[in-house]
Amino acid sequence: MAGKKSMRDLLIEELRDVYNAEKQLTRALPKMARAAHSEDLKTAFKEHLEETQGQIERLEQVFEKLDVRARGKLCHAMEGLVEEAKDMMEEGLEPDVLDAALIAAAQKVEHYEIASYGTLQAYAQALGEKEVAKLLEETLKEEKATDERLNKLACGDINKKAVKAA
Amino acid sequence: MAGKKSMRDLLIEELRDVYNAEKQLTRALPKMARAAHSEDLKTAFKEHLEETQGQIERLEQVFEKLDVRARGKLCHAMEGLVEEAKDMMEEGLEPDVLDAALIAAAQKVEHYEIASYGTLQAYAQALGEKEVAKLLEETLKEEKATDERLNKLACGDINKKAVKAA
Repeated sequence: MAGKKSMRDLLIEELRDVYNAEKQLTRALPKMARAAHSEDLKTAFKEHLEETQGQIERLEQVFEKLDVRARGKLCHAMEGLVEEAKDMMEEGLEPDVLDAALIAAAQKVEHYEIASYGTLQAYAQALGEKEVAKLLEETLKEEKATDERLNKLACGDINKKAVKAA
Repeated sequence: MAGKKSMRDLLIEELRDVYNAEKQLTRALPKMARAAHSEDLKTAFKEHLEETQGQIERLEQVFEKLDVRARGKLCHAMEGLVEEAKDMMEEGLEPDVLDAALIAAAQKVEHYEIASYGTLQAYAQALGEKEVAKLLEETLKEEKATDERLNKLACGDINKKAVKAA
Protein backbone atom coordinates (compact mmCIF):
# COMPACT_ATOMS: atom_id res chain seq x y z
CA MET A 1 0.00 0.00 0.00
CA ALA A 2 2.54 2.56 -1.18
CA GLY A 3 1.83 6.18 -0.44
CA LYS A 4 -0.31 5.45 2.62
CA LYS A 5 0.96 6.89 5.86
CA SER A 6 2.39 4.61 8.55
CA MET A 7 2.32 4.61 12.36
CA ARG A 8 5.72 6.30 12.33
CA ASP A 9 4.27 9.08 10.13
CA LEU A 10 1.39 9.41 12.58
CA LEU A 11 3.81 9.66 15.52
CA ILE A 12 5.64 12.49 13.73
CA GLU A 13 2.36 14.27 12.83
CA GLU A 14 1.25 14.14 16.46
CA LEU A 15 4.66 15.36 17.64
CA ARG A 16 4.38 18.34 15.28
CA ASP A 17 0.92 19.09 16.64
CA VAL A 18 2.04 19.12 20.28
CA TYR A 19 5.27 21.00 19.43
CA ASN A 20 3.14 23.81 18.00
CA ALA A 21 0.69 23.53 20.91
CA GLU A 22 3.50 24.02 23.45
CA LYS A 23 4.78 27.04 21.54
CA GLN A 24 1.31 28.59 21.52
CA LEU A 25 1.17 27.96 25.25
CA THR A 26 4.43 29.84 25.89
CA ARG A 27 2.74 32.91 24.37
CA ALA A 28 -0.47 32.48 26.40
CA LEU A 29 0.98 31.72 29.85
CA PRO A 30 2.57 35.16 30.45
CA LYS A 31 -0.83 36.78 29.75
CA MET A 32 -2.51 34.36 32.12
CA ALA A 33 0.10 35.09 34.81
CA ARG A 34 -0.49 38.85 34.42
CA ALA A 35 -4.28 38.41 34.56
CA ALA A 36 -4.18 36.21 37.68
CA HIS A 37 -5.05 37.85 40.98
CA SER A 38 -3.76 35.20 43.40
CA GLU A 39 0.01 35.25 43.93
CA ASP A 40 0.09 31.44 44.14
CA LEU A 41 -1.64 31.20 40.78
CA LYS A 42 0.69 33.77 39.20
CA THR A 43 3.64 31.68 40.44
CA ALA A 44 2.10 28.46 39.14
CA PHE A 45 1.70 29.96 35.66
CA LYS A 46 5.23 31.41 35.65
CA GLU A 47 6.74 28.12 36.76
CA HIS A 48 4.74 26.22 34.20
CA LEU A 49 6.05 28.58 31.53
CA GLU A 50 9.62 27.58 32.42
CA GLU A 51 8.61 23.93 32.48
CA THR A 52 6.95 24.30 29.06
CA GLN A 53 10.16 25.70 27.63
CA GLY A 54 11.94 22.60 28.92
CA GLN A 55 9.25 20.42 27.35
CA ILE A 56 9.83 22.12 23.99
CA GLU A 57 13.53 21.29 24.25
CA ARG A 58 12.64 17.71 25.13
CA LEU A 59 10.47 17.52 21.99
CA GLU A 60 13.46 18.78 19.98
CA GLN A 61 15.49 15.87 21.42
CA VAL A 62 12.70 13.52 20.33
CA PHE A 63 12.75 14.88 16.76
CA GLU A 64 16.52 14.45 16.73
CA LYS A 65 16.31 10.86 17.91
CA LEU A 66 13.76 10.14 15.18
CA ASP A 67 16.05 11.91 12.70
CA VAL A 68 13.44 14.38 11.50
CA ARG A 69 13.51 18.16 11.52
CA ALA A 70 11.83 19.80 14.55
CA ARG A 71 8.92 21.71 13.15
CA GLY A 72 5.36 22.37 14.24
CA LYS A 73 2.01 22.06 12.53
CA LEU A 74 -0.76 24.44 13.56
CA CYS A 75 -2.67 22.86 16.45
CA HIS A 76 -6.30 23.96 16.06
CA ALA A 77 -7.31 22.53 19.42
CA MET A 78 -4.74 24.64 21.29
CA GLU A 79 -5.85 27.66 19.26
CA GLY A 80 -9.38 27.06 20.54
CA LEU A 81 -8.19 26.52 24.11
CA VAL A 82 -6.15 29.73 24.08
CA GLU A 83 -9.08 31.63 22.56
CA GLU A 84 -11.28 30.42 25.43
CA ALA A 85 -8.71 31.59 27.97
CA LYS A 86 -8.62 35.03 26.28
CA ASP A 87 -12.44 35.20 26.28
CA MET A 88 -12.38 34.52 30.03
CA MET A 89 -9.99 37.43 30.58
CA GLU A 90 -12.42 39.73 28.76
CA GLU A 91 -15.63 38.46 30.37
CA GLY A 92 -15.70 41.12 33.09
CA LEU A 93 -15.41 38.61 35.92
CA GLU A 94 -14.75 39.56 39.54
CA PRO A 95 -10.97 39.20 40.16
CA ASP A 96 -11.38 36.11 42.37
CA VAL A 97 -13.83 34.61 39.88
CA LEU A 98 -11.35 35.29 37.09
CA ASP A 99 -8.77 33.24 39.00
CA ALA A 100 -11.19 30.30 39.11
CA ALA A 101 -11.82 30.74 35.37
CA LEU A 102 -8.10 30.89 34.56
CA ILE A 103 -7.54 27.64 36.44
CA ALA A 104 -10.34 26.02 34.43
CA ALA A 105 -8.78 27.22 31.17
CA ALA A 106 -5.34 25.99 32.24
CA GLN A 107 -6.66 22.59 33.31
CA LYS A 108 -8.28 22.17 29.90
CA VAL A 109 -4.88 22.87 28.35
CA GLU A 110 -3.19 20.39 30.69
CA HIS A 111 -5.74 17.73 29.82
CA TYR A 112 -5.14 18.31 26.12
CA GLU A 113 -1.47 17.73 26.75
CA ILE A 114 -2.05 14.71 29.00
CA ALA A 115 -4.07 13.09 26.19
CA SER A 116 -1.41 14.04 23.60
CA TYR A 117 1.63 12.82 25.52
CA GLY A 118 -0.23 9.69 26.65
CA THR A 119 -0.94 8.87 23.01
CA LEU A 120 2.56 9.80 21.83
CA GLN A 121 4.19 7.67 24.48
CA ALA A 122 1.98 4.68 23.56
CA TYR A 123 2.84 5.13 19.87
CA ALA A 124 6.57 5.34 20.60
CA GLN A 125 6.38 2.19 22.71
CA ALA A 126 4.43 0.29 20.07
CA LEU A 127 7.09 1.33 17.54
CA GLY A 128 9.91 0.12 19.83
CA GLU A 129 11.28 3.67 20.25
CA LYS A 130 12.17 3.21 23.91
CA GLU A 131 14.27 6.35 24.41
CA VAL A 132 11.62 8.50 22.76
CA ALA A 133 8.92 6.88 24.91
CA LYS A 134 10.96 7.66 28.04
CA LEU A 135 11.33 11.35 27.14
CA LEU A 136 7.61 11.64 26.43
CA GLU A 137 6.80 9.89 29.72
CA GLU A 138 8.81 12.54 31.61
CA THR A 139 6.71 15.32 30.09
CA LEU A 140 3.50 13.37 30.68
CA LYS A 141 4.35 13.17 34.41
CA GLU A 142 5.00 16.93 34.52
CA GLU A 143 1.68 17.72 32.85
CA LYS A 144 -0.19 15.49 35.31
CA ALA A 145 1.61 17.16 38.23
CA THR A 146 0.68 20.62 36.90
CA ASP A 147 -2.97 19.59 36.58
CA GLU A 148 -2.87 18.30 40.16
CA ARG A 149 -1.28 21.53 41.40
CA LEU A 150 -4.00 23.60 39.71
CA ASN A 151 -6.63 21.33 41.21
CA LYS A 152 -5.24 21.93 44.69
CA LEU A 153 -5.22 25.70 44.15
CA ALA A 154 -8.84 25.64 42.96
CA CYS A 155 -10.18 23.37 45.68
CA GLY A 156 -7.95 24.73 48.44
CA ASP A 157 -8.84 28.37 48.37
CA ILE A 158 -9.56 29.98 45.01
CA ASN A 159 -13.04 28.57 44.35
CA LYS A 160 -14.14 29.51 47.90
CA LYS A 161 -12.91 33.08 47.46
CA ALA A 162 -14.63 33.23 44.08
CA VAL A 163 -17.96 32.25 45.66
CA LYS A 164 -17.60 34.94 48.35
CA ALA A 165 -16.82 37.56 45.69
CA ALA A 166 -20.36 37.23 44.35
CA MET B 1 -18.96 45.68 42.53
CA ALA B 2 -22.12 45.86 40.43
CA GLY B 3 -21.93 44.59 36.86
CA LYS B 4 -19.05 42.23 37.50
CA LYS B 5 -19.77 38.58 36.90
CA SER B 6 -20.03 36.15 39.81
CA MET B 7 -19.05 32.52 40.31
CA ARG B 8 -22.63 31.52 39.50
CA ASP B 9 -22.35 33.39 36.19
CA LEU B 10 -19.09 31.55 35.51
CA LEU B 11 -20.74 28.19 36.26
CA ILE B 12 -23.47 29.02 33.74
CA GLU B 13 -20.94 30.20 31.11
CA GLU B 14 -18.99 26.96 31.48
CA LEU B 15 -22.18 24.90 31.29
CA ARG B 16 -23.08 26.66 28.03
CA ASP B 17 -19.63 25.90 26.68
CA VAL B 18 -19.85 22.18 27.43
CA TYR B 19 -23.48 22.00 26.27
CA ASN B 20 -22.36 23.26 22.86
CA ALA B 21 -19.28 21.01 22.95
CA GLU B 22 -21.44 17.90 23.51
CA LYS B 23 -23.73 18.90 20.65
CA GLN B 24 -20.75 19.34 18.33
CA LEU B 25 -19.60 15.88 19.44
CA THR B 26 -22.92 14.27 18.49
CA ARG B 27 -22.29 15.48 14.92
CA ALA B 28 -18.67 14.25 14.85
CA LEU B 29 -19.08 10.79 16.41
CA PRO B 30 -21.15 9.23 13.57
CA LYS B 31 -18.41 10.29 11.11
CA MET B 32 -15.74 8.81 13.36
CA ALA B 33 -17.73 5.56 13.65
CA ARG B 34 -18.01 5.34 9.86
CA ALA B 35 -14.29 6.05 9.41
CA ALA B 36 -13.19 3.44 11.98
CA HIS B 37 -11.91 0.13 10.65
CA SER B 38 -12.03 -1.93 13.86
CA GLU B 39 -15.49 -3.21 14.77
CA ASP B 40 -14.74 -2.69 18.48
CA LEU B 41 -13.86 0.93 17.82
CA LYS B 42 -16.98 1.49 15.69
CA THR B 43 -19.06 0.09 18.56
CA ALA B 44 -17.26 2.27 21.12
CA PHE B 45 -18.01 5.41 19.09
CA LYS B 46 -21.65 4.42 18.54
CA GLU B 47 -22.17 3.68 22.21
CA HIS B 48 -20.49 6.91 23.21
CA LEU B 49 -22.86 8.77 20.88
CA GLU B 50 -25.82 7.38 22.82
CA GLU B 51 -24.12 8.22 26.10
CA THR B 52 -23.44 11.77 24.86
CA GLN B 53 -27.12 12.23 24.07
CA GLY B 54 -27.87 11.23 27.68
CA GLN B 55 -25.26 13.70 28.90
CA ILE B 56 -26.94 16.48 26.93
CA GLU B 57 -30.24 15.64 28.64
CA ARG B 58 -28.45 15.65 32.00
CA LEU B 59 -27.11 19.14 31.22
CA GLU B 60 -30.67 20.22 30.45
CA GLN B 61 -31.66 19.00 33.91
CA VAL B 62 -28.81 21.04 35.36
CA PHE B 63 -29.97 24.20 33.57
CA GLU B 64 -33.47 23.56 34.87
CA LYS B 65 -32.28 23.14 38.46
CA LEU B 66 -30.36 26.42 38.14
CA ASP B 67 -33.48 28.01 36.65
CA VAL B 68 -31.80 29.22 33.46
CA ARG B 69 -32.62 28.47 29.86
CA ALA B 70 -30.65 25.59 28.32
CA ARG B 71 -28.58 27.14 25.57
CA GLY B 72 -25.08 26.70 24.26
CA LYS B 73 -22.24 29.07 23.51
CA LEU B 74 -19.85 28.19 20.71
CA CYS B 75 -17.02 26.09 22.18
CA HIS B 76 -13.90 26.99 20.20
CA ALA B 77 -11.85 24.23 21.80
CA MET B 78 -14.26 21.52 20.65
CA GLU B 79 -14.30 23.12 17.20
CA GLY B 80 -10.52 22.71 17.09
CA LEU B 81 -10.69 19.15 18.41
CA VAL B 82 -13.28 18.15 15.81
CA GLU B 83 -11.24 19.84 13.08
CA GLU B 84 -8.22 17.75 14.12
CA ALA B 85 -10.29 14.57 13.97
CA LYS B 86 -11.46 15.53 10.45
CA ASP B 87 -7.88 16.26 9.36
CA MET B 88 -6.90 12.77 10.54
CA MET B 89 -9.62 11.21 8.40
CA GLU B 90 -8.21 13.01 5.36
CA GLU B 91 -4.52 12.34 6.03
CA GLY B 92 -4.31 9.24 3.84
CA LEU B 93 -3.43 6.93 6.73
CA GLU B 94 -3.36 3.14 6.48
CA PRO B 95 -6.76 1.87 7.81
CA ASP B 96 -5.22 0.41 11.00
CA VAL B 97 -3.19 3.59 11.52
CA LEU B 98 -6.34 5.66 11.07
CA ASP B 99 -7.93 3.68 13.92
CA ALA B 100 -5.01 4.62 16.18
CA ALA B 101 -5.40 8.25 15.07
CA LEU B 102 -9.16 8.25 15.71
CA ILE B 103 -8.59 6.96 19.22
CA ALA B 104 -6.07 9.76 19.84
CA ALA B 105 -8.58 12.35 18.60
CA ALA B 106 -11.34 10.86 20.74
CA GLN B 107 -9.14 10.75 23.85
CA LYS B 108 -8.34 14.44 23.40
CA VAL B 109 -12.09 15.10 23.31
CA GLU B 110 -12.63 12.98 26.43
CA HIS B 111 -9.88 14.84 28.25
CA TYR B 112 -11.46 18.18 27.32
CA GLU B 113 -14.68 16.94 28.84
CA ILE B 114 -12.97 15.46 31.91
CA ALA B 115 -11.40 18.87 32.60
CA SER B 116 -14.73 20.65 31.97
CA TYR B 117 -16.92 18.43 34.12
CA GLY B 118 -14.25 18.31 36.85
CA THR B 119 -14.29 22.10 36.96
CA LEU B 120 -18.07 22.35 36.74
CA GLN B 121 -18.55 19.88 39.55
CA ALA B 122 -16.08 21.78 41.76
CA TYR B 123 -17.87 25.08 41.01
CA ALA B 124 -21.27 23.58 41.80
CA GLN B 125 -19.96 22.19 45.07
CA ALA B 126 -18.35 25.48 46.05
CA LEU B 127 -21.70 27.18 45.35
CA GLY B 128 -23.58 24.64 47.51
CA GLU B 129 -25.49 23.29 44.49
CA LYS B 130 -25.39 19.67 45.65
CA GLU B 131 -27.89 18.17 43.20
CA VAL B 132 -26.20 19.88 40.28
CA ALA B 133 -22.79 18.67 41.48
CA LYS B 134 -24.14 15.12 41.66
CA LEU B 135 -25.46 15.20 38.09
CA LEU B 136 -22.14 16.56 36.81
CA GLU B 137 -20.24 13.91 38.77
CA GLU B 138 -22.22 11.19 36.97
CA THR B 139 -21.16 12.53 33.58
CA LEU B 140 -17.57 12.97 34.77
CA LYS B 141 -17.46 9.28 35.68
CA GLU B 142 -18.81 8.32 32.25
CA GLU B 143 -16.20 10.44 30.45
CA LYS B 144 -13.39 8.87 32.50
CA ALA B 145 -14.73 5.39 31.73
CA THR B 146 -14.87 6.19 28.00
CA ASP B 147 -11.28 7.44 28.07
CA GLU B 148 -10.24 4.23 29.84
CA ARG B 149 -12.11 2.10 27.29
CA LEU B 150 -10.36 3.88 24.40
CA ASN B 151 -7.04 3.39 26.16
CA LYS B 152 -7.65 -0.35 26.41
CA LEU B 153 -8.56 -0.54 22.72
CA ALA B 154 -5.38 1.33 21.75
CA CYS B 155 -3.01 -0.58 23.99
CA GLY B 156 -4.73 -3.93 23.61
CA ASP B 157 -4.63 -4.39 19.88
CA ILE B 158 -5.08 -1.32 17.68
CA ASN B 159 -1.63 0.28 18.12
CA LYS B 160 0.06 -3.08 17.47
CA LYS B 161 -1.93 -3.59 14.26
CA ALA B 162 -1.13 -0.03 13.23
CA VAL B 163 2.60 -0.70 13.60
CA LYS B 164 2.35 -3.86 11.48
CA ALA B 165 0.46 -1.94 8.79
CA ALA B 166 3.57 0.11 8.07
